[in-house]
Amino acid sequence: MKLQIALDLVDTNTALKMVEKIQDIIDIVEIGTPMIVKEGMAPVKAMKEKFPQVTVLADVKIADGGAIESGYAVDAGADIVTVLAIASDQTIMGARDAAHKAGREIYVDMLSVPDVVARAKELDTMGVDYIGVHTASDVQGLGKTPYEELRQIAEVVKNAKIAAAGGINLGTIGKVKELGADVGIVGSALTSAPDLRQAVESYQAIIKGE
Amino acid sequence: MKLQIALDLVDTNTALKMVEKIQDIIDIVEIGTPMIVKEGMAPVKAMKEKFPQVTVLADVKIADGGAIESGYAVDAGADIVTVLAIASDQTIMGARDAAHKAGREIYVDMLSVPDVVARAKELDTMGVDYIGVHTASDVQGLGKTPYEELRQIAEVVKNAKIAAAGGINLGTIGKVKELGADVGIVGSALTSAPDLRQAVESYQAIIKGE
Repeated sequence: MKLQIALDLVDTNTALKMVEKIQDIIDIVEIGTPMIVKEGMAPVKAMKEKFPQVTVLADVKIADGGAIESGYAVDAGADIVTVLAIASDQTIMGARDAAHKAGREIYVDMLSVPDVVARAKELDTMGVDYIGVHTASDVQGLGKTPYEELRQIAEVVKNAKIAAAGGINLGTIGKVKELGADVGIVGSALTSAPDLRQAVESYQAIIKGE
Repeated sequence: MKLQIALDLVDTNTALKMVEKIQDIIDIVEIGTPMIVKEGMAPVKAMKEKFPQVTVLADVKIADGGAIESGYAVDAGADIVTVLAIASDQTIMGARDAAHKAGREIYVDMLSVPDVVARAKELDTMGVDYIGVHTASDVQGLGKTPYEELRQIAEVVKNAKIAAAGGINLGTIGKVKELGADVGIVGSALTSAPDLRQAVESYQAIIKGE
């Protein structure tokens, strides 16, 4: 399983400094939606320019204008671009095609999907690269977690890689791997760690079964 | 009914030049999602700085992190901020509160909502300022339009203002008004007009029944 760090509440310079410390031990660096809302594609571009060898995901959460917005992320250098599963199939396919034409990947975020099993089956026939379950940060306070949905989609997704996000921490990253995720996404549990490099090493040790 | 122009596929400078021509006759200027994906809040900030009297809507299409992302748009000067209706109630209320605390408004976009009547009723009890039906640009080619959904929500929304977007043009803006919209949103039909000012005047003449 790969480890993805979600950088949400930092500016571009802070994000670059954080990744500098972990660029050799992190698998995927996510430029989170709040960063994109604030700064657009600038942090994606800056991250790829400074760390071309790092895999960068642009969490655009495309809802419409799939080809156009995916194209912007691709032009900025994103290796992976996110689109919402609740978007129309046309939007998802447009985003997919814009990414694939440039040799990049598309990630479908299952945020707010009522029936994740049915939608995951549909998406899995559409040639998307990742299908990720996602407990919104705004509902984590209600005690919701992504683990049951991860278990459900692991049973039905045959082609795409699967991922999980939403409150994952050092105590649950092992469960995410056991449930079959190809990517485990960790946000504040990593970004708030006093020693970021040591924290990433702790997660990777669990993932690698050390 | 107010007329909103959606600026989607232009850069900040072009957007400023366009609004310069129509700032006294347009009701709401929308900084579209593609602009935000590319440039973040910079175009919102630039628009309000140059035209403080113009009402600016930031089409963030918030899906999570309601308070944070709405706060970013408010800080940039947005008068109205959009959140997706498919987002959790917690996200919508967080976005609403961040906007209202600053004396701004929240607009809920019904993109991809399966049952618009049921969701509009729920949203209307949540103190949001606008509820807008929206036919995604990516599905307009399939012949879909927002008019039937506008008619449906007009019957059930009692508190919020209602709006419609998605392929509206000079031939349909009259129908949007007749169906009871408080705001009619026009994108490419206006932005591709050879004479933007004359085009806005034509729409306003129909809206005002001249």
